[in-house]
Amino acid sequence: MSMDVESFRKAGYQAIDSICDFHYNLHNHNVFSAVEPGYLRKALPDHAPEHGEHFQDITEDYQKHIIPGLTIWQHPSFFAYFPTPGTLEATLGDLVASSISNPGFNWDSSPASTELEALVMDWSAKLFGLDKAFYNENNTGGGVIQTTASESALVMVVAARSRYTRTYPGTDLNKLVIYVTTQTHSLGVKAALILGLRVRVIDVHLKDGLSLRGCALQQAYEEDKEAGLHPFILIATVGTTSSGAIDNIPEIFTVARNFPSFWVHIDAAWAGVALSCPEHRDICHLDEINRFADSFCTNFHKWGLVNHDCSALWVRDRKCLIDALDITPEFLKTKEGEQGTVIDYRNWHLGLSRRFRSLKLWFVLRCYGAEGFREHIRKGIRLNDRFATLVGSSKELALVTAPSFSLSVFCVRAPEGVTVSQNELTLDLHTRLSARKDIAITKTYLNDILCIRFAVGAARTEEKHIDAAFELITSEARQLLASISSV
Amino acid sequence: MSMDVESFRKAGYQAIDSICDFHYNLHNHNVFSAVEPGYLRKALPDHAPEHGEHFQDITEDYQKHIIPGLTIWQHPSFFAYFPTPGTLEATLGDLVASSISNPGFNWDSSPASTELEALVMDWSAKLFGLDKAFYNENNTGGGVIQTTASESALVMVVAARSRYTRTYPGTDLNKLVIYVTTQTHSLGVKAALILGLRVRVIDVHLKDGLSLRGCALQQAYEEDKEAGLHPFILIATVGTTSSGAIDNIPEIFTVARNFPSFWVHIDAAWAGVALSCPEHRDICHLDEINRFADSFCTNFHKWGLVNHDCSALWVRDRKCLIDALDITPEFLKTKEGEQGTVIDYRNWHLGLSRRFRSLKLWFVLRCYGAEGFREHIRKGIRLNDRFATLVGSSKELALVTAPSFSLSVFCVRAPEGVTVSQNELTLDLHTRLSARKDIAITKTYLNDILCIRFAVGAARTEEKHIDAAFELITSEARQLLASISSV
Repeated sequence: MSMDVESFRKAGYQAIDSICDFHYNLHNHNVFSAVEPGYLRKALPDHAPEHGEHFQDITEDYQKHIIPGLTIWQHPSFFAYFPTPGTLEATLGDLVASSISNPGFNWDSSPASTELEALVMDWSAKLFGLDKAFYNENNTGGGVIQTTASESALVMVVAARSRYTRTYPGTDLNKLVIYVTTQTHSLGVKAALILGLRVRVIDVHLKDGLSLRGCALQQAYEEDKEAGLHPFILIATVGTTSSGAIDNIPEIFTVARNFPSFWVHIDAAWAGVALSCPEHRDICHLDEINRFADSFCTNFHKWGLVNHDCSALWVRDRKCLIDALDITPEFLKTKEGEQGTVIDYRNWHLGLSRRFRSLKLWFVLRCYGAEGFREHIRKGIRLNDRFATLVGSSKELALVTAPSFSLSVFCVRAPEGVTVSQNELTLDLHTRLSARKDIAITKTYLNDILCIRFAVGAARTEEKHIDAAFELITSEARQLLASISSV
Repeated sequence: MSMDVESFRKAGYQAIDSICDFHYNLHNHNVFSAVEPGYLRKALPDHAPEHGEHFQDITEDYQKHIIPGLTIWQHPSFFAYFPTPGTLEATLGDLVASSISNPGFNWDSSPASTELEALVMDWSAKLFGLDKAFYNENNTGGGVIQTTASESALVMVVAARSRYTRTYPGTDLNKLVIYVTTQTHSLGVKAALILGLRVRVIDVHLKDGLSLRGCALQQAYEEDKEAGLHPFILIATVGTTSSGAIDNIPEIFTVARNFPSFWVHIDAAWAGVALSCPEHRDICHLDEINRFADSFCTNFHKWGLVNHDCSALWVRDRKCLIDALDITPEFLKTKEGEQGTVIDYRNWHLGLSRRFRSLKLWFVLRCYGAEGFREHIRKGIRLNDRFATLVGSSKELALVTAPSFSLSVFCVRAPEGVTVSQNELTLDLHTRLSARKDIAITKTYLNDILCIRFAVGAARTEEKHIDAAFELITSEARQLLASISSV
């Protein structure tokens, strides 16, 4: 039955110890699990026990059945997707947040929860050099923690649609259009699916570094207006998932500033945390973002040292957000809310209740300090530069685009005279690498070129892991090419 | 800078100890904090530190500045909203989940995460007596953990709209209508706001126990179809937030089964966990839900012993959900996903990445067992019955509706001859109770009657806290009535 406080203390210490063991033994695990679909259903009962069990038994099952089924995102050889390794500091923040389990939807449902979130979002805005228009302390814009960049983008589309339809009452929903590019994360198309709205996927080109140009945006807009449609938002990207491309934000704003009631959301889910380093602000177009962007999102839970979930979203005009989402039935009315002297975060996101996520961010920002945070970012870029340099001098591999921050994208160099296409070779290499469980990479298409993505970011990844990964990939590529030429 | 494993062990033990202290000292805290808006900004720096700080300093600030700003949802005198107390067992589950920080969007992004969620959702379906159509193991329906009942409802509206518009291609979005009642949680109207869709709020009446009747649904539907509109979903409630009312599910299905492609979602966010007790299944209309409901939601993070967030959602036809939300760019394609042999939970919710929430649910279901879970529910009902009986025999207070599970709704009994209305008296009592920080209650309107809600559910609430709460409320009511009669 229910655990008393002393049993919790004992079990808690054990849980902490087992997390320590996990970290000490990371290198003994493969990155990918070898389990087969359905493995867990075979190992565990098909219904909850009738009587309560001892915590020790559950812990043993965790070690025996759950750990072997994990993909180890903290592993130093994890280079797939974007690493989401988290930190021990953030784990402690999550622990404390969970222990108080406060659904901070209103200020008074837990003042500390709302106030800490408002404060650390301002700390973060300052860390990234965002304009004070986005600070909570200025009371017109503000920052809020969402679960994912997908949710952040979705909320911004809702706010943009609300602003547009308030400006143009009676707008036909069937004629509204969301703009993304072929390189925008699937969150753009998913937002359109969820909202049942049209989406226009604008082509971008390798010659432009897969960056959205102003002229392409202008042309799409003119065509759509001509066709009686209502484009109302662009999701622009700083650091695309596939190749780390950065849309041409200056050109975009030059054009978009002339579109009435048109929202520009900047999705910098992965790369946005690089703004902590002044040397990366120009390439991210921070100045233009500060002057013109309606909203900006970056995920601390990707490259930003905080455990999932912690997506940071800033909006220039909080009223647009609140107007779009505010529902206040009697049971949610509070004195402070009605006086307008506090933030009620329920009106800043899709749900009602929300976790106390700012604690883990607070822990991380204080433990690392701005300096430590920047050093983490610079280390990731340094390691990726090392990898990209190795690929650049390789006979078997070739970079497809310039390395972007901590991401490299490469393909197999097709030898002259072979009949197999470069894409087939790269696919074969990907298949070989995926069959191994000791390294994690993913693949993508850049227009018609199949590529392998290599993203650095786990806290324990060091130069030796980069070198070992390059050796391993090269070795597989050589075997692949040897098998081709011997056919 | 970054914490090493041994520093984490030490800090982790301290964090566990501080959680123990918090629980031992619960009764020394007020339920509500006495802090004023803006208190935390005055106490903490306005930017992140440049250099990393010692964890000990952060912990001290937590004790000094965060704890005093908490609303204590675990407090035995917390009767506001619906208690979301969580358990120590679930806290450990959250700790472990955070330490591995796996964003389980695909099966292969962490097989254990997907497989455990699919399994414990089946355990839960069996615990509640849901039909096997809803089990993941049957591969047509299935269960998934969402963040909140709001998100669960929103996802179901999206799935319902998708099914409807696939059945009737070319349907005008401007003509789609979501059905809720005046007693449905604000999640219904919020889903409509988010999706930009019409919502029809159907009146329900005190004479029907604030339950939606079939005839009212039938009339609304006929009127709307006549007007060229397309009602496509009803969010029906088992246990409303305001009074715990239960919609007339049998009548609703008798009617709704004749509406083409019409979805019925059952929102049992709070009361659904009572289905664990066979004696409550009839009143919740489990049989009809099992036969006809398209989807069913209950929150383990309300009355179900699991820390926020853990909203359990089941759907009869998973294809409707996946068809509505599936986006699979190249970088998300996996061998198992393409073979269709696994669940990829990214297509079952709004975002992409997701936390490993099933761990805490697994810990709770195993530690308590079905028997312990039912005992927890029965205890809440027993305590509320005690409170309702006291109110029923009170001279100053009166129940407005029959007690529902662990919720009572009451008002002040206006003495004969006073000119002040009953609503004014109840509002005055609410104001008096809210000014105290040692008890937490909330207010609501049931049609035109202002009521005070009293919801039992915190794990440490015992008979003595119920009796003390009743004494306290009665004492405030007497002072209030004395002040009126002396005017």
